Amino acid sequence: MNHPALPDMILEPLIRSALMEDLGASGDITTLTVVPPDVTYSAKLNAREDAVVSGMQVAALTFGMIDPSLEVITRVADGQSCSKGDTLMEITGSAASILSGERVALNFAGRLSGVATATAALVRETEGTHARITCTRKTTPGLRIVEKQAVLHGGGYNHRFSLSDAILIKDNHIAAAGGVQAVLEATKARASHMMKVEIEVDRLDQLAEVLEVGGADVVLLDNMTLENLTEAVAMVSGQLITEASGNVTRNTVKAIAETGVDYISSGALTHSYRTIDLGLDF
Amino acid sequence: MNHPALPDMILEPLIRSALMEDLGASGDITTLTVVPPDVTYSAKLNAREDAVVSGMQVAALTFGMIDPSLEVITRVADGQSCSKGDTLMEITGSAASILSGERVALNFAGRLSGVATATAALVRETEGTHARITCTRKTTPGLRIVEKQAVLHGGGYNHRFSLSDAILIKDNHIAAAGGVQAVLEATKARASHMMKVEIEVDRLDQLAEVLEVGGADVVLLDNMTLENLTEAVAMVSGQLITEASGNVTRNTVKAIAETGVDYISSGALTHSYRTIDLGLDF
Amino acid sequence: MNHPALPDMILEPLIRSALMEDLGASGDITTLTVVPPDVTYSAKLNAREDAVVSGMQVAALTFGMIDPSLEVITRVADGQSCSKGDTLMEITGSAASILSGERVALNFAGRLSGVATATAALVRETEGTHARITCTRKTTPGLRIVEKQAVLHGGGYNHRFSLSDAILIKDNHIAAAGGVQAVLEATKARASHMMKVEIEVDRLDQLAEVLEVGGADVVLLDNMTLENLTEAVAMVSGQLITEASGNVTRNTVKAIAETGVDYISSGALTHSYRTIDLGLDF
Amino acid sequence: MNHPALPDMILEPLIRSALMEDLGASGDITTLTVVPPDVTYSAKLNAREDAVVSGMQVAALTFGMIDPSLEVITRVADGQSCSKGDTLMEITGSAASILSGERVALNFAGRLSGVATATAALVRETEGTHARITCTRKTTPGLRIVEKQAVLHGGGYNHRFSLSDAILIKDNHIAAAGGVQAVLEATKARASHMMKVEIEVDRLDQLAEVLEVGGADVVLLDNMTLENLTEAVAMVSGQLITEASGNVTRNTVKAIAETGVDYISSGALTHSYRTIDLGLDF
Amino acid sequence: MNHPALPDMILEPLIRSALMEDLGASGDITTLTVVPPDVTYSAKLNAREDAVVSGMQVAALTFGMIDPSLEVITRVADGQSCSKGDTLMEITGSAASILSGERVALNFAGRLSGVATATAALVRETEGTHARITCTRKTTPGLRIVEKQAVLHGGGYNHRFSLSDAILIKDNHIAAAGGVQAVLEATKARASHMMKVEIEVDRLDQLAEVLEVGGADVVLLDNMTLENLTEAVAMVSGQLITEASGNVTRNTVKAIAETGVDYISSGALTHSYRTIDLGLDF
Amino acid sequence: MNHPALPDMILEPLIRSALMEDLGASGDITTLTVVPPDVTYSAKLNAREDAVVSGMQVAALTFGMIDPSLEVITRVADGQSCSKGDTLMEITGSAASILSGERVALNFAGRLSGVATATAALVRETEGTHARITCTRKTTPGLRIVEKQAVLHGGGYNHRFSLSDAILIKDNHIAAAGGVQAVLEATKARASHMMKVEIEVDRLDQLAEVLEVGGADVVLLDNMTLENLTEAVAMVSGQLITEASGNVTRNTVKAIAETGVDYISSGALTHSYRTIDLGLDF
Repeated sequence: MNHPALPDMILEPLIRSALMEDLGASGDITTLTVVPPDVTYSAKLNAREDAVVSGMQVAALTFGMIDPSLEVITRVADGQSCSKGDTLMEITGSAASILSGERVALNFAGRLSGVATATAALVRETEGTHARITCTRKTTPGLRIVEKQAVLHGGGYNHRFSLSDAILIKDNHIAAAGGVQAVLEATKARASHMMKVEIEVDRLDQLAEVLEVGGADVVLLDNMTLENLTEAVAMVSGQLITEASGNVTRNTVKAIAETGVDYISSGALTHSYRTIDLGLDF
Repeated sequence: MNHPALPDMILEPLIRSALMEDLGASGDITTLTVVPPDVTYSAKLNAREDAVVSGMQVAALTFGMIDPSLEVITRVADGQSCSKGDTLMEITGSAASILSGERVALNFAGRLSGVATATAALVRETEGTHARITCTRKTTPGLRIVEKQAVLHGGGYNHRFSLSDAILIKDNHIAAAGGVQAVLEATKARASHMMKVEIEVDRLDQLAEVLEVGGADVVLLDNMTLENLTEAVAMVSGQLITEASGNVTRNTVKAIAETGVDYISSGALTHSYRTIDLGLDF
Repeated sequence: MNHPALPDMILEPLIRSALMEDLGASGDITTLTVVPPDVTYSAKLNAREDAVVSGMQVAALTFGMIDPSLEVITRVADGQSCSKGDTLMEITGSAASILSGERVALNFAGRLSGVATATAALVRETEGTHARITCTRKTTPGLRIVEKQAVLHGGGYNHRFSLSDAILIKDNHIAAAGGVQAVLEATKARASHMMKVEIEVDRLDQLAEVLEVGGADVVLLDNMTLENLTEAVAMVSGQLITEASGNVTRNTVKAIAETGVDYISSGALTHSYRTIDLGLDF
Repeated sequence: MNHPALPDMILEPLIRSALMEDLGASGDITTLTVVPPDVTYSAKLNAREDAVVSGMQVAALTFGMIDPSLEVITRVADGQSCSKGDTLMEITGSAASILSGERVALNFAGRLSGVATATAALVRETEGTHARITCTRKTTPGLRIVEKQAVLHGGGYNHRFSLSDAILIKDNHIAAAGGVQAVLEATKARASHMMKVEIEVDRLDQLAEVLEVGGADVVLLDNMTLENLTEAVAMVSGQLITEASGNVTRNTVKAIAETGVDYISSGALTHSYRTIDLGLDF
Repeated sequence: MNHPALPDMILEPLIRSALMEDLGASGDITTLTVVPPDVTYSAKLNAREDAVVSGMQVAALTFGMIDPSLEVITRVADGQSCSKGDTLMEITGSAASILSGERVALNFAGRLSGVATATAALVRETEGTHARITCTRKTTPGLRIVEKQAVLHGGGYNHRFSLSDAILIKDNHIAAAGGVQAVLEATKARASHMMKVEIEVDRLDQLAEVLEVGGADVVLLDNMTLENLTEAVAMVSGQLITEASGNVTRNTVKAIAETGVDYISSGALTHSYRTIDLGLDF
Repeated sequence: MNHPALPDMILEPLIRSALMEDLGASGDITTLTVVPPDVTYSAKLNAREDAVVSGMQVAALTFGMIDPSLEVITRVADGQSCSKGDTLMEITGSAASILSGERVALNFAGRLSGVATATAALVRETEGTHARITCTRKTTPGLRIVEKQAVLHGGGYNHRFSLSDAILIKDNHIAAAGGVQAVLEATKARASHMMKVEIEVDRLDQLAEVLEVGGADVVLLDNMTLENLTEAVAMVSGQLITEASGNVTRNTVKAIAETGVDYISSGALTHSYRTIDLGLDF
């Protein structure tokens, strides 16, 4: 089973905002000035490079919002791969409408396919291990929902969506609370039973304390050497889910996965992806 | 005179949305669970690499919205350069508030400093020419206002903000309108006198037709060879503003500038920038 | 080619707000109390005086929003003239729905036809000259987009839409910046190449300075005598677009146009128009 | 006791919308380009003609929103009269901020003072009678709250605010419901006891039926001759509140008032007022 | 004639908010994870106890918003009674969509049927008297419009919707204004003729003063004994509408009604109703 | 450590909506008509019965929004107990402002104290066991955040906030997915590691299958007898968190807790609480 599409109503406010930002207060003045309203086009959204595709649901909604009479056919679904030259979507109808929606559709689809493609690259490197690739909260302000979906489309997994979804205790929380024991006791005493608890450690002695105190579900092994990661996985021995972070690139990810960690998280998936080159051809 | 700050009321809705996205429905559950409300911190927003800074007004507003009692002092203003290790901002007050706002502030400031730094790099390459660096509408959906400001902070210039600001006639408009003459006549007949008119050409014979028909203020010379750019500048001879686009990188920009064009536009400034590594240290 | 309609999505938020304002928190209590839901009507939106029509797209959207099952047929399109007694629109369906939407539709259409009619009156007076009639930013708060469209429907031209669209330098800007030369140099140094620059003068010596310094695209000749306007046009001699403002009425506009100015701007088009008398007949 | 000011929170969304409309997506580009941020001004909002003032609370909020550091002193309160040349408000602080807020403040205050002044003119004509002047729902879309306040400032009274405030039965309602008796019985059976009921009649025999059936609180005597109005007042004899409408002008209003009606309503107060000439002097 | 449905556009923002609250930032993750998108269901919304039904329009809109392709058939309309086991609504289509909308639809319909059922119980007790049952402003924040509709569905009447609908003078207003005479004189001098005026009294001597001063339409007899209520009705003798409040329960309401008051208001109808047990069966 | 307050910015939109609902389009017309603006009051928010308090942060924000010049002092914090007659909050300033905000503040505080008090009652019954009381998603549409906070104030625990927070697999999900094994395998394959997984069972053989397949963190034991609950706890033997639901009342909760379950969830805490009687005394 593939990842099902979100209900449109979740995505529509984001797309409406983006269209309003690009249309401006008085609309696409170029098209209104020079394109006769009765000209119709059939346009193809084409890939100009190989990619894993994301943003097709968003692009289809974009064209549908700007003009409900446009006919939109998706040829390559979110989560599928495409090759340079492939047609991802066909849009038929008013030339003015297609031209007015083009940039927003491309701005979304190029970025989201960039996230999916970057994710898929890490996933491919870790094939044969049981490690899963996951994202972080280092997403673009306002685009978290679609970037997180793009990570799924690339074969990755999502980390918590927001600060209210799960507990992730970092060094500054530990310091403010008065140490690992205090922080985990507070969590056990006060956290919801429906809330996962993750705690960040960067040294093996911290990990030992976490294991001794209990109360965590996941441990984030941050910026550890491969040796320490291997040792940490052995110490944990299946009692907790292990997640590695820090210096995760296409070059390093395989070795990290081979230490036996369960998850590898990468902020770069959503903060440093390269926009995929897509174009609309008429 | 530096670029003055925008009125806060223009930026606040964007920041509020980003905070709500990150806080989620029920707030920063980690901090609410483990950080005692009376713990106070003094935190420094530090640069972990050299950069041209943008996003400080946004970051200051972010902390002020999450907790108006936080004291925020900006040490490096938007548009200034910083070196690795420099402190850009100091935030003092409730530890819980600082921790809850940290990620949104960093997500903005890292990206915007990325845009400013990328812009400054192109600007530096073109020093000694009269060419100016400008952005496009290939911005991140929802972030156009702050990314455009970041281009200014990097020493660049803004292109039109939205489809309603200026007329930019591309090949598909020309086709729909029935040719260069038709499209420019339509513009002369119907466009506002307060609206600049730019037309895209990719061949010199098109440029000749544009010059003959008149009615444009700016010509976009798209994907031309350096030879053709030089020839185009000569043909235009100051009658229009010239803008070059296509294949603009740090390696190519100097040669493009030396053809004598007035503006060089780059979509990559806003769609492929690298996030600058910033961190909050307590 | 007529002025094409804006995408509905640009107008819908404005119409939704107006309907919510008029429906109030609990809807049209009169209709809910006394009109049986199964009564259907066929209503005609009729002109009670001669006019140039605007607001038909808005009125059609108004009825469509209050009840998508209403059938709405526009008989006279935005931008066309009508005579007293003409039917502009026919609406068929639930009597309750038509009655609930009537006032908002009329409040819009009467005002916007008022703007279009006032514009057309000035346009008619200036026939035979090359002067164009244009509006200002003295629009009704919240209605700028539809009032500006109504100016187009009346045969006029739009001035800048907002403060972010174009540069218009007035006396207070000049004073704050330190004089005409300083203000134009600042503009040349810092303004986007996609932004028109207009500067206001009310004396011929100021105009001479503007022409000498350069950097402006348009000059606003404010409150000048006909003699000075004529002299100003001669001085400018096609180097700049000329715009006259001040004391523009149906009585004065022809003489102003005959001075040779390119544009004549009138705030009264949007701040002192008379609402056209329209009615809904059942 | 004067009319107290509304809570600011009721007016702020309207003012914010108006400011965002005028600032556009990227702010007051003229001021940002040419006015140094450290220049301060002291500006006076002056009347250029005699008027009854409204819109001062709105104007003060406008300047406060664009820049909370501006000092704003209101010299003539909403509801007071002013003479040509009077200073209504003084604003001191950043020149850039004052210039950026000027147009919105004037667009509101000129219109609202226009409504107040037009209302006051009718009130003055009816002095010595017991008739009160009231407005209708023919208000500018989006501005109803401030236009209704302006009617109060001019010495008039408000009619219902929206369709959900009170019951007003017009001819089409009567037709749809099956006659005067049916419509009033429906009202008696189903309307809230906190809801006033008004019914429109244009003939004396209809009035007789209304009086016989009962159930109304107010009768709207629409487009009646002075003779019929006088007769109607006699027939009603204090059992109902009487309201006259139709052809209400400064010339006719006194005679209408002298028929003895309780209220005289005028749509023109809010749909055909003349904007008062106000200006900001530095 | 039953109570007609409100226009959907009045209810949609409330339902959209409720759905967004329940879907959260990333949607129904359970359904997205485990329910294949091609599974379809036919579900019945069943009553698990006897009730007077309200919330069916709201529930139908809820399912329609989450997925416009769902087929929704209402079997028992708002305002009708149902028995335990009755099917109120049938929903057919995507299982995932039905499951994602289920909780919001039930949260609304159970509460609103609770209000209607509680109202109907008081109405039933007062049959044979002429007293009508009415609600107050003690409604759930955000749900006033649907709770007020539910009171109508239960056979009750609505009191004012908000503070801007009608004048209701309580003891604190009287104290602030300087006594009953002062407060009623202010009202006569300044209130709109379309605004009902109600005044609260808790003693018979206050009632006498109200009757003497005049200016009220309705008198609220608060927390009076049955004897005093009876006496008050006699004193009023049809000059004012009478409304009793305080200690209104199923046990007391009949006796209160038999005192002859016109209206009996109960805050408990909207602040202490019991949610009706409804369920969705597949 | 008590439960810290949420950042105000999370609560403000909800409170603003509630105030706008109650103020209506034109504000508190009673107060505007009869209360002189210069009258000041000192008011006390008093408890008219014993309760556990919630809603004080909300009430303080309510008064602060309607008039920032009001002085508000909270005497009993959210989460503390009060006795009949205790003063919870003191508000000093403009009488008009206090009267305009009173109803919204009371509508929130009475309901939220009702939730807290109902929660505390169940918590008290289960003292001496290790069972914790938790809420469900059967909250009032729009009020989930404050009702969930009120559960914390009463000493309870929160369940998931929305459908996107955690996975809760019910019988219809199991049916749609093809059985317990299929549903849990799908979860293991696709769910985020930061997401808790709960599965509902109502028979012991289902529980056995859940334990065998694995992949769940929490098991919801729905509507089981006390005997079966005891047996279920024994079967689970600490491998999963156990949660009991169904028929949870003050009378039954102790016995349920004594079966050894970890959590007891009650929808009635948020759908059938009684509003606590609070009043504002001047």
